[in-house]
Amino acid sequence: MADVNKVVLAYSGGLDTSVILKWLQDTYNCEVVTFTADLGQGEEVEPARAKAQAMGVKEIYIDDLREEFVRDFVFPMFRANTVYEGEYLLGTSIARPLIAKRLIEIANETGADAISHGATGKGNDQVRFELGAYALKPGVKVIAPWREWDLLSREKLMDYAEKHGIPIERHGKKKSPYSMDANLLHISYEGGVLEDTWTEHEEDMWRWTVSPEKAPDTPQYLELTYRNGDIVAIDGVEMTPATVLATLNRIGGEHGIGRLDIVENRYVGMKSRGCYETPGGTIMLRAHRAIESITLDREVAHLKDELMPKYASLIYTGYWWSPERLMLQQMIDASQAHVNGVVRLKLYKGNVIVTGRKSDESLFDANIATFEEDGGAYNQADAAGFIKLNALRMRIAANKGRTLI
Amino acid sequence: MADVNKVVLAYSGGLDTSVILKWLQDTYNCEVVTFTADLGQGEEVEPARAKAQAMGVKEIYIDDLREEFVRDFVFPMFRANTVYEGEYLLGTSIARPLIAKRLIEIANETGADAISHGATGKGNDQVRFELGAYALKPGVKVIAPWREWDLLSREKLMDYAEKHGIPIERHGKKKSPYSMDANLLHISYEGGVLEDTWTEHEEDMWRWTVSPEKAPDTPQYLELTYRNGDIVAIDGVEMTPATVLATLNRIGGEHGIGRLDIVENRYVGMKSRGCYETPGGTIMLRAHRAIESITLDREVAHLKDELMPKYASLIYTGYWWSPERLMLQQMIDASQAHVNGVVRLKLYKGNVIVTGRKSDESLFDANIATFEEDGGAYNQADAAGFIKLNALRMRIAANKGRTLI
Amino acid sequence: MADVNKVVLAYSGGLDTSVILKWLQDTYNCEVVTFTADLGQGEEVEPARAKAQAMGVKEIYIDDLREEFVRDFVFPMFRANTVYEGEYLLGTSIARPLIAKRLIEIANETGADAISHGATGKGNDQVRFELGAYALKPGVKVIAPWREWDLLSREKLMDYAEKHGIPIERHGKKKSPYSMDANLLHISYEGGVLEDTWTEHEEDMWRWTVSPEKAPDTPQYLELTYRNGDIVAIDGVEMTPATVLATLNRIGGEHGIGRLDIVENRYVGMKSRGCYETPGGTIMLRAHRAIESITLDREVAHLKDELMPKYASLIYTGYWWSPERLMLQQMIDASQAHVNGVVRLKLYKGNVIVTGRKSDESLFDANIATFEEDGGAYNQADAAGFIKLNALRMRIAANKGRTLI
Amino acid sequence: MADVNKVVLAYSGGLDTSVILKWLQDTYNCEVVTFTADLGQGEEVEPARAKAQAMGVKEIYIDDLREEFVRDFVFPMFRANTVYEGEYLLGTSIARPLIAKRLIEIANETGADAISHGATGKGNDQVRFELGAYALKPGVKVIAPWREWDLLSREKLMDYAEKHGIPIERHGKKKSPYSMDANLLHISYEGGVLEDTWTEHEEDMWRWTVSPEKAPDTPQYLELTYRNGDIVAIDGVEMTPATVLATLNRIGGEHGIGRLDIVENRYVGMKSRGCYETPGGTIMLRAHRAIESITLDREVAHLKDELMPKYASLIYTGYWWSPERLMLQQMIDASQAHVNGVVRLKLYKGNVIVTGRKSDESLFDANIATFEEDGGAYNQADAAGFIKLNALRMRIAANKGRTLI
Repeated sequence: MADVNKVVLAYSGGLDTSVILKWLQDTYNCEVVTFTADLGQGEEVEPARAKAQAMGVKEIYIDDLREEFVRDFVFPMFRANTVYEGEYLLGTSIARPLIAKRLIEIANETGADAISHGATGKGNDQVRFELGAYALKPGVKVIAPWREWDLLSREKLMDYAEKHGIPIERHGKKKSPYSMDANLLHISYEGGVLEDTWTEHEEDMWRWTVSPEKAPDTPQYLELTYRNGDIVAIDGVEMTPATVLATLNRIGGEHGIGRLDIVENRYVGMKSRGCYETPGGTIMLRAHRAIESITLDREVAHLKDELMPKYASLIYTGYWWSPERLMLQQMIDASQAHVNGVVRLKLYKGNVIVTGRKSDESLFDANIATFEEDGGAYNQADAAGFIKLNALRMRIAANKGRTLI
Repeated sequence: MADVNKVVLAYSGGLDTSVILKWLQDTYNCEVVTFTADLGQGEEVEPARAKAQAMGVKEIYIDDLREEFVRDFVFPMFRANTVYEGEYLLGTSIARPLIAKRLIEIANETGADAISHGATGKGNDQVRFELGAYALKPGVKVIAPWREWDLLSREKLMDYAEKHGIPIERHGKKKSPYSMDANLLHISYEGGVLEDTWTEHEEDMWRWTVSPEKAPDTPQYLELTYRNGDIVAIDGVEMTPATVLATLNRIGGEHGIGRLDIVENRYVGMKSRGCYETPGGTIMLRAHRAIESITLDREVAHLKDELMPKYASLIYTGYWWSPERLMLQQMIDASQAHVNGVVRLKLYKGNVIVTGRKSDESLFDANIATFEEDGGAYNQADAAGFIKLNALRMRIAANKGRTLI
Repeated sequence: MADVNKVVLAYSGGLDTSVILKWLQDTYNCEVVTFTADLGQGEEVEPARAKAQAMGVKEIYIDDLREEFVRDFVFPMFRANTVYEGEYLLGTSIARPLIAKRLIEIANETGADAISHGATGKGNDQVRFELGAYALKPGVKVIAPWREWDLLSREKLMDYAEKHGIPIERHGKKKSPYSMDANLLHISYEGGVLEDTWTEHEEDMWRWTVSPEKAPDTPQYLELTYRNGDIVAIDGVEMTPATVLATLNRIGGEHGIGRLDIVENRYVGMKSRGCYETPGGTIMLRAHRAIESITLDREVAHLKDELMPKYASLIYTGYWWSPERLMLQQMIDASQAHVNGVVRLKLYKGNVIVTGRKSDESLFDANIATFEEDGGAYNQADAAGFIKLNALRMRIAANKGRTLI
Repeated sequence: MADVNKVVLAYSGGLDTSVILKWLQDTYNCEVVTFTADLGQGEEVEPARAKAQAMGVKEIYIDDLREEFVRDFVFPMFRANTVYEGEYLLGTSIARPLIAKRLIEIANETGADAISHGATGKGNDQVRFELGAYALKPGVKVIAPWREWDLLSREKLMDYAEKHGIPIERHGKKKSPYSMDANLLHISYEGGVLEDTWTEHEEDMWRWTVSPEKAPDTPQYLELTYRNGDIVAIDGVEMTPATVLATLNRIGGEHGIGRLDIVENRYVGMKSRGCYETPGGTIMLRAHRAIESITLDREVAHLKDELMPKYASLIYTGYWWSPERLMLQQMIDASQAHVNGVVRLKLYKGNVIVTGRKSDESLFDANIATFEEDGGAYNQADAAGFIKLNALRMRIAANKGRTLI
């Protein structure tokens, strides 16, 4: 067992990380620094302070990271139209590198030599936390209690809590049967009935969105203003990044937008089913493609599309803090210099419908695209030569007897 | 001007290709063979026979290609989850190589030395027709009247028709202001008000789908059975490929599924706005990803995702009949050997919601994925080593003073 | 410690694996089956039999795998012009999956529940052996003594050998200071003075090739005949795959061909310097590109080039027995259908010079390529349209004020 | 025929472009501005001035572009280890965009509305010149005489010259039978006996290098110093980019380095055989990989390798002045921040042998890489977990009955 003096714990204030806090103190006989972040998960973070104090913690960090999260992590990711395995908008993945970064910053500030987190040994999050931590502070010790202790069932955890006087809140409402994670970008659900891939998800699982069935019968129009690939205003009102996303979450949620039920491939090797609500992100993905469709060069757009799966995998697997992600980001960011303009959307019962896009930097040229006479803007005869030379290699091959069918 | 003896014309029976037919006869003083295909565009093809005969055509081909179209073109394309520029399902693109192939087969049967088509000199379709034709018969002559003649406005075309006694049908209903193309996979709209990217598409433009607003208030569940990556049954009823697609079009259309309004990048260099209705295809894309999610290996899936944009571009730009498309297809098809099983969907007002997927060849292992105790199926301690070695290169770099932030 | 009944050991007969044999017997109290392969490493394999017998081994496998190695592993790899990190021809990497396969086959035949090997915990080979083993027999136990025992220095190993009566051969010649690996494709050197990347490799390290300085002053010409991408004859004499490679090794070695000194990135995360002699492989790589240059379609060739780094990484990191490598292989093999013909080479003091290539399936068309008048085979005017349309997107952008400089 | 007032001609002073000069004056009745560049082709550029004056040209540009060429074109390209189709170092391709840029700059300075060049309608160079010109000045007219006139044989060209009093220099030495192009990066040969792919190139064709057979018997050692991926000093002597390349050309040429004989795929569709001498470039490619091998992160290096074929194709096909090339360049340049250090090479009779590389920013860690005891720098036990989790997906598949063989 590593010799640890002081450990920074990613602390939610909930039961699991409270048990971890106690367990760290007892097992490592070390000082614990708690770090609680407001990433827009929709729960109060201040209660964590009293709980930590009650367990004797002296250095308590409670940070509102919402703006940083959206500005430096969510927005850059959406510049690439990032989707993992064709569906997943990476809501959990993109929050982890920010937490890793803060854990290390706090470790440096407090002189801690270790960090700890509540992620299990089967999931992606442990990888994301730890790769980030090692990349930013290579000598740091990492304590992952779920990989070390023997409290592997809920009963044992409860027993431990009871035995050590850790308060177990018993709300009137039933404990959710799902393992959940939330931040400004999404809320996720795993476990429970979802562990059978054929069983339909339950309607009362969803927390952020109404069902399309319950959404308003009247569509809502929305205009999103882009600057360098990021949304800076909604319906003409300039907003900070976090406000943009919160607003889109609220509106999207009202219209039943952004539910997803998938089976994904975890980095540690197994398939896993997850349900996600990403109302704002779902809107942003569609809208960003729309503004790019008139402002990006074709080959730049295609190159981005070809690199996107790789970029998405890097984020999913925890390599945000890696030189290859940074290298890709430089290219992605550079591509956004002209991605300015406005996209008009219509939201209706789960649908995000693009109804218009405009830009001072639009590359759309109606005069050339038109089916009407264009006054010589485009010489149709050029197409013959274009086709002939593009076909040449295939004609030579066919002439020499190669067959395709 | 090329010396032409006999030309096979892709003939719809409509005004434009009727004018072309006449123009070919007059201009090239050659025999014309007409070829009219039923690709599921929803219009009668037989009327083309009488029209062609009336213009003196002796060799008339009218083919029902619906099954071949879906089985050999649409289904293979969907095995790759193919989407062009993140949105477009390639409904027009995928029909062109089949037409090109038939044009050449008929040219070979009838001893024709040329082919002709009604695509303009500004679009992608001329490229798709001609690349296919050249690849399959390298010495063929291609006559593209829109690139050659001076009938470049609708008025001139009408004048020509009138002057040459080509009947202009004047329905009660107003001529559509859109340039349209339809086949079993989709119907497309271009031109008219769509030439302003900011103007919303008009509700009465759409022909195949009701709007989500008008779709039924009751969702419909659907079970799709896959064999080697293709749908072979709907709700347990085995069907031919064309029947599968026609059925999904009907159901999808009833539920307002599959409308799309995008600006795309044409191969000939300009941006162009198109609206598309692809009800069945929209369902198939979502469902195919779902069945793959439990039956495909992770790295195979990711490799497919990385190659998809390239494959989509090849189809969009007309390289179906190319050795590189065939090479990719071999890999794609090979990946589908285990893509068998059933996907359950819920359709509701424009939404395609996956609610379950199962397969005898599922790679989902609930025992390993579970958050509950798994009886040793997975050793959580392995994760520590996994992370440590994946982090090693970044730790070494950080130790040597490299910084990421 | 795992409970093991019978283990198949990859046994060279040398000191290290002899110690492992003994250590397995003592530590696991299990039966050991030895497997010794002739992969063309140039050492006798039969002596391993007596040594194994002397240690009480009852089931002894000694296999000549040279033909299988070249036919099913080396040749398929060279079809892709495979090079890792721009330089390394993967000589060690490509042999491991064959050994893994045989270990598992023998385990199945002998009812063994475990395999063992002599690769260290720092290298790539452990990964290659074990990924292959797990992929082919998922429940197999793997014993990697170098990761388990405490005999981590040469002294301890020698002590252990002496203590347990394992004969230590002391040749007259000094023990090589290098860690070496050899098979028909190459011989490799690591360690010793090579651990300083600035120090020049020593001339007397190399074993298979003369130095270019010592190579003959007279060049040698060679004609290689290809069938489906593989060499089937040298100077017109048909040969088996292993004979082809052995012959090229001999000739290449005489001419000082195929030495390499690089720093490579290991899968487990660190950089490592290696020196390699790959005389036959160096010739094959150059020649294969030459035969492909006249027989492969351009876009097929480019697609292969784009996928090669991925394919090379899969082999380097041990994923030969993975579905994604198999999927890529199908595409690569399919591309070789027309890769038939003859390449003429000139070998001289380390140089492999292509001097000619011909094929009945050549796509080279002198009539079209010529700078002389071509009698209309190619219409130069086509180029204007080709260029104009390829430039269109950039012209539109420039017209709208976008700047590139 | 386009209406042209003033045209800037890429003028070498040789026979072909002199004929073009005259032909432009006569055919277009326009003013001609000549532009002659010293790109290190090894011929005097000043004589072009008198010839142009003699034909009445008033605006004559003669530029020494050698430093700009190497600094802004050659060096950036080598940062990516760029090779087209596995062999070609793009010596001709990389010079064209600089000429295109200067043609447009001069057109802007002189108020010319057209440019002209002497490239034929069958080659890549016309594309490279014209794509660059259109991208930088979208409205420019391009006159490509070889695609327009009827002087398609050498005889007709000579006749035209004689008739119009254009001096035809008749050296004592026989006119080369090859079409050649030279600049500081290389000299190329096409045509003549090379049009038969089986015929060996002739020894007396080569102009820049001695044959390996004639190279010195004594090897030469060389130390190259890198700063941000570019060579800044040779054997410790700081030099400008053009001097670096000229020096490496001289030394490499003396040692018989950098000859190449290939069949390549032209952008316009046919295969073409070319011979190239690139002595300095051949040295630079090998050396750059060597300095990157110790200073680049593994995944950054692999990403570069995966993107290189695309980047090479962009340069080969003339898209230097495109947004996608610029986007890739940003990523490539960013990757070179730490590519600093020294590479030691040994040159001998055509061989470029790396014998050492060192860097203050080396990521090579002898302590971790060593086969000796490392004092705990690396925990070998980590490898077990690393392998286990990397194998997990394949083990699950095998457990469920999937087979690989």
